[in-house]
Amino acid sequence: MTAGRIICAGLGPGDPDLLSVRSDRVIRAAGHVAYFRKSGRQGQARRMVDGMLRADVREMAMEYPVTTELPFDSQAYIHLLATFYDDWAARLQALAAAGTDVVVLCEGDPFFYGSFMHLYVRLKDQVAVEVIPGIPGMVGCWNAVGVPITWGDDVLTVLMGTLPEADLARHMQGTDALVIMKTGRNLPRVRRALAQAGRLDDAWLVERGTMPGQRIARLAEVEAADCPYFAIVLVHGRGRRPVAGGEE
Amino acid sequence: MTAGRIICAGLGPGDPDLLSVRSDRVIRAAGHVAYFRKSGRQGQARRMVDGMLRADVREMAMEYPVTTELPFDSQAYIHLLATFYDDWAARLQALAAAGTDVVVLCEGDPFFYGSFMHLYVRLKDQVAVEVIPGIPGMVGCWNAVGVPITWGDDVLTVLMGTLPEADLARHMQGTDALVIMKTGRNLPRVRRALAQAGRLDDAWLVERGTMPGQRIARLAEVEAADCPYFAIVLVHGRGRRPVAGGEE
Ligand SMILES: C[S@@+](CC[C@H](N)C(=O)[O-])C[C@H]1O[C@@H](n2cnc3c(N)ncnc32)[C@H](O)[C@@H]1O
Ligand SMILES: C[S@@+](CC[C@H](N)C(=O)[O-])C[C@H]1O[C@@H](n2cnc3c(N)ncnc32)[C@H](O)[C@@H]1O
Repeated sequence: MTAGRIICAGLGPGDPDLLSVRSDRVIRAAGHVAYFRKSGRQGQARRMVDGMLRADVREMAMEYPVTTELPFDSQAYIHLLATFYDDWAARLQALAAAGTDVVVLCEGDPFFYGSFMHLYVRLKDQVAVEVIPGIPGMVGCWNAVGVPITWGDDVLTVLMGTLPEADLARHMQGTDALVIMKTGRNLPRVRRALAQAGRLDDAWLVERGTMPGQRIARLAEVEAADCPYFAIVLVHGRGRRPVAGGEE
Repeated sequence: MTAGRIICAGLGPGDPDLLSVRSDRVIRAAGHVAYFRKSGRQGQARRMVDGMLRADVREMAMEYPVTTELPFDSQAYIHLLATFYDDWAARLQALAAAGTDVVVLCEGDPFFYGSFMHLYVRLKDQVAVEVIPGIPGMVGCWNAVGVPITWGDDVLTVLMGTLPEADLARHMQGTDALVIMKTGRNLPRVRRALAQAGRLDDAWLVERGTMPGQRIARLAEVEAADCPYFAIVLVHGRGRRPVAGGEE
């Protein structure tokens, strides 16, 4: 018997037409698929492959431990999460050892702030793991706005909305183009930091980029109340653009 | 007669299997394709679609003006380049006006430091333009190294090797994860800036990521002599990783 493999398929930003040819092929052929989700939800990764899976596919929903009682950054929660990744790594490894290939679905690019990385570090020396790159969510978002994100020598900085406000503002000030992910409930802090850095008027909010329900707006004109998890803030670079007669 | 469209197809990092499903479909069906290249070369974009084009396809090589006599940053060269983009925008617009669809091939993601953006700003108010996102070259490169690029709250900064050494070093110091593009002949300066920022020992050089002839090495161990145009330097973030018992 030959051992099976764990194949992590990057899904891209949301539109199934933006899957890579390889991810598309691997997902349609899969006998076993696994994906992360919050308990009680269908999960974005699973939703993105609706209608693509084999009729006889075996599905494994990897449900994050519930966290209403524990602060996200407490040692207790970090321990709970580590145990969750340990358990799933062990289950996937056992399946591979028994000769089964498992396709793990991951939004965007798996190696770019993806949850799969926590399984990857646990599995990579135990079993064959293949990772298929995907278009990161931010790339789908800046294409949805329809304005190039970076030109010439522009510096691009990617920030997480979970950072402290002062760190956010400092990085926002020192860059040309800007991407802020994990906005969601952090949007009010992100907005304050942008205002402090003098960049709020150039910022766009893209919710569910390339997904059903996509919404694009200037951040300054948005009510901060109900930002979804799949939301990215963008500030475009201006760079050098050759125009006859000199620079623009 | 209905007007034609200009469709820019992002090609991803190099491996044709990493094209998006939509780009793959559009390229295989194209009657007219256009692509940038240096004069006398086949061009990387064209090479990436070898074997995919229709037998009766009409090809347009958009050859950059020759620059041996003019410094890259001179007003004269900037003018030459602007005229070149003006001319090609006019030719593509005329084809579209005559009812012809043209597919423009672009490495990586077209809106991420891509040459197509110079045509895009000239065409977008004149004719229907569609841009198909692609996996940026850097995403192919960090997947080729096989190590996740960013975790948790990591800050990622993307720099161009064309920046002055002091600017490079300052940005390198202030970030967690790092991508440096347009290395090529700038590699010696990039290396000095990394050393100054104390990050040379963590840097990887990826040449032709996911393309034939791919090479991956620790930058500190590489001879700086002959770095190709398609080369990216990476420094990975370390972020927060939950392990049972605390943080790693
Ligand atoms: C844990 S990160 C995963 C990133 C993913 N691996 C990628 O390459 O995009 C989740 C964050 O990605 C961002 N995101 C991913 N896809 C998005 C989309 N289509 N629209 C808006 N935001 C998106 C959101 O900011 C979200 O909070
Ligand atoms: C003008 S930029 C175009 C970037 C492209 N639009 C993208 O999304 O990757 C050209 C630079 O991209 C980088 N690059 C793109 N693809 C690459 C690959 N497969 N391997 C190494 N470097 C690559 C190199 O640093 C090169 O100098």
